[in-house]
Amino acid sequence: MTAFPVTARNRVRRLPARSAYDKAAIYPIIDEALICHVGFVDEGQPFVIPTIHGRQEDTLFLHGAKASRLLKVVQSGQPVCITFTLLDGLVMARSVFHSSMNYRSAVVFGVGRVLEDPAQKLHALAVITEHVARGRWQEARQPTEQELNATAIAALTIESASAKVRSGPPVDDEEDYALPIWGGVLPLRQQVMEPAADGRVKEGVAVPASLRHYHR
Amino acid sequence: MTAFPVTARNRVRRLPARSAYDKAAIYPIIDEALICHVGFVDEGQPFVIPTIHGRQEDTLFLHGAKASRLLKVVQSGQPVCITFTLLDGLVMARSVFHSSMNYRSAVVFGVGRVLEDPAQKLHALAVITEHVARGRWQEARQPTEQELNATAIAALTIESASAKVRSGPPVDDEEDYALPIWGGVLPLRQQVMEPAADGRVKEGVAVPASLRHYHR
Repeated sequence: MTAFPVTARNRVRRLPARSAYDKAAIYPIIDEALICHVGFVDEGQPFVIPTIHGRQEDTLFLHGAKASRLLKVVQSGQPVCITFTLLDGLVMARSVFHSSMNYRSAVVFGVGRVLEDPAQKLHALAVITEHVARGRWQEARQPTEQELNATAIAALTIESASAKVRSGPPVDDEEDYALPIWGGVLPLRQQVMEPAADGRVKEGVAVPASLRHYHR
Repeated sequence: MTAFPVTARNRVRRLPARSAYDKAAIYPIIDEALICHVGFVDEGQPFVIPTIHGRQEDTLFLHGAKASRLLKVVQSGQPVCITFTLLDGLVMARSVFHSSMNYRSAVVFGVGRVLEDPAQKLHALAVITEHVARGRWQEARQPTEQELNATAIAALTIESASAKVRSGPPVDDEEDYALPIWGGVLPLRQQVMEPAADGRVKEGVAVPASLRHYHR
């Protein structure tokens, strides 16, 4: 399967021309996003929690402390929604009405399960670590058995998903182009600055490969 | 009231030392964030949708098309959760276990109402527009009656909220500082690039004040 079937759950209601349902559109957004926002329901109340993720094929991995509400809900087998958003610019139309943002977002649905097997948990942590900074898993000290026990890992098979993308300049009403109002885009991007070592890096230990020329 | 009472709903479960409940901590996060992630429940299924917002005192404004699912749910008086996240850096500890991110996030709870009065809607749109780019409301062509009719506005009084913040270098286990592993922070920020005019800006119309030296 290379695209998700369009159902009531994942169908993009507003501006369907901006939507996509194929993995080739959705997965690069998930992979570029450093964090996601996980939505779940607890006693009728929705919660949205930002967290780090990793993806392998159709599986998303999330991690947290064993006591976290998020992991408890996932463990109970309730449906969750995970959203990934990349902001690319402010779209300044001549009219307020047509002003917008350029963005790439993905909305994913599924039911999570909690991993218990230490080898599977370790693998999931490697995927999450590599998602944040490629190469870091080998550079860093990997989890001890005790640390692994203290970490809860949720795996979620992506059942359904959609992407929504806006790009390009504003689209104003034709008559508004005659107005003496500036129209265009203010591009935004996530800037990575110079790595800042803490005060306790051993002499001779350089900035590692995972952080040199870091980009997503 | 300058702080939100701590209840089962807004209490930060994990790492409570990072939490805050006062408006002086929460509102600047809401105001700096360009977008938010709105969580709501529709027939038992959670949804998380990224959208633009504006805040005035204890009220959040969201806008959308009349047909949007988000606005329909808000109109029905169901509880929503709105989360705002600012990412400040990757915290590269020597151990995978203590690796983290620096962030500022705010989680807000409330029940929305849909604004019907045109003057109130216009005011909310001004708040949202000014949130994105201060000064833009006066620069741009403001909504016509027809445009205003086509726009749905939700107002949500913030009933409960919390903030969670992590900053600073990694905190490694004492014995790990002896390892020849780099530890520190890769700082991140939202970079604003040069405004890019579309091809139809009238001669003599300069980049407006709202976009010159834009920062949040």
